[in-house]
Parts: sequence; structure tokens; C-alpha cells
Amino acid sequence: MEKINLAAKLSLFSDYFNPRIIGELNGQHVKLAKFQGEFVWHKHDHEDELFLVLEGEFNMEFRYKTITLRKDEIIIVPKGVEHRPVAEKEVSILMFEPVSTLNTGDAKSELTREKLEKI
Amino acid sequence: MEKINLAAKLSLFSDYFNPRIIGELNGQHVKLAKFQGEFVWHKHDHEDELFLVLEGEFNMEFRYKTITLRKDEIIIVPKGVEHRPVAEKEVSILMFEPVSTLNTGDAKSELTREKLEKI
Repeated sequence: MEKINLAAKLSLFSDYFNPRIIGELNGQHVKLAKFQGEFVWHKHDHEDELFLVLEGEFNMEFRYKTITLRKDEIIIVPKGVEHRPVAEKEVSILMFEPVSTLNTGDAKSELTREKLEKI
Repeated sequence: MEKINLAAKLSLFSDYFNPRIIGELNGQHVKLAKFQGEFVWHKHDHEDELFLVLEGEFNMEFRYKTITLRKDEIIIVPKGVEHRPVAEKEVSILMFEPVSTLNTGDAKSELTREKLEKI
């Protein structure tokens, strides 16, 4: 059992929309990701997702509104709700979601990451 | 669906060892708490617990070692592992754990909070 330093883990990668797993508990993964640019519209039929901004800011787009999230702000996206993260500049995110969660949900594409690295 | 600002939520309470619920997803609660002083030794037989330091620092004591956690550091305490948080000065914590989790685990006392406030 060791502590996890978020800054140290974030320094280990620099690519976008490729979440890394940093912990697991109760069937949930704790992940870190960096976003820049536009992700794909998608939803998760069976998983709620939590996003916490560690550095920077991004827009979480929904079909009927957009929420701008800044450092130390959280959004919980319920299962079944279409969403698309868009970041004008690099943003660092902590995510908390079930082990079963695929990054692109129901919208498989070249952005899909089937197997995530553990760091 | 609204965002959750951690600083705004933390400003809503000032007592210690009395977690508040700020979100729920996939059967897990997201909680905020402030610690100061010594908590009780306890374990959770069925729940892993995650602690993320938002401000300040504290020691997570285990029977055979102590880990000092500072801002932007996480520890995941596996089910069944005895632990005791001790904070010399006030520390603000974000916690992820199953909805079923009782703050004092198997060590019910006057510090037990059966019903947590949602903020």
C-alpha cells in the first residue's frame, strides 16, 4: 500500500484522450487523462462517470447545454447521457468510473482505447 | 446536471470527522470531510476507501507503518485493513467509497455518523 502523487503520475504521459489507470477500488477505476481538442460524442449505457479537473479547464458538451469545468470542479455524467469533452488547451483530469467503462462508450472509433496502461 | 465546485462545498461546513455527501455514482458516494486531531482505529470489512487531500496534510496510520499524505496525493485503503487518520492541523479530504460505508467502520463510537448530510 503506497500513496499516489497525482503530479508525479501526470508527468509520466503527454498524449491526449488516452486515460491511464492509477488505482482500483470496489470495482471502480481511478484514471488520469489529458485532453486537448474535441473528443467524440458518446454515452455509456451502464456506467456513470466522474470528471475532476486537476489543471486547466474544458467544456463538457451535452446536447442541450455546455458546462465549463475549471480546476477543482467535478461533473458526474449519468449513464445514458450523451456528452463530448472539448478542451481548447491542455487539461488534466481525474476520472472515477466502473472497471467496465470504455472511453468512447457506444461510439467506437480510432479514439477508442480498449486496453489502458496502468501507471 | 450541474457541476460541483469543491471550494464552494468545503465552505459550507467546518466541523471535523463528519463527512458530507456531494455526489453519487455507480453505488459509490463522493464525500468531503475535514479532519483535525486523531480519529479512531477501524476497518471496513466490505469496502475499499479512497482519500484525496485537497488542502493540508495528514497521517494515515496503519498498524505497521504511517503514510503522510499531502495536497494532491491519494491513498486507497483496502477492505479489512485497520487504519486511523491523524491530522495535526486541519486538512480537507475528498473520499470515494461505497454508499454502504460507515465512517467508523467496525468501531462504532460517539464519532460514528450514521446519517450523512448531502450538500
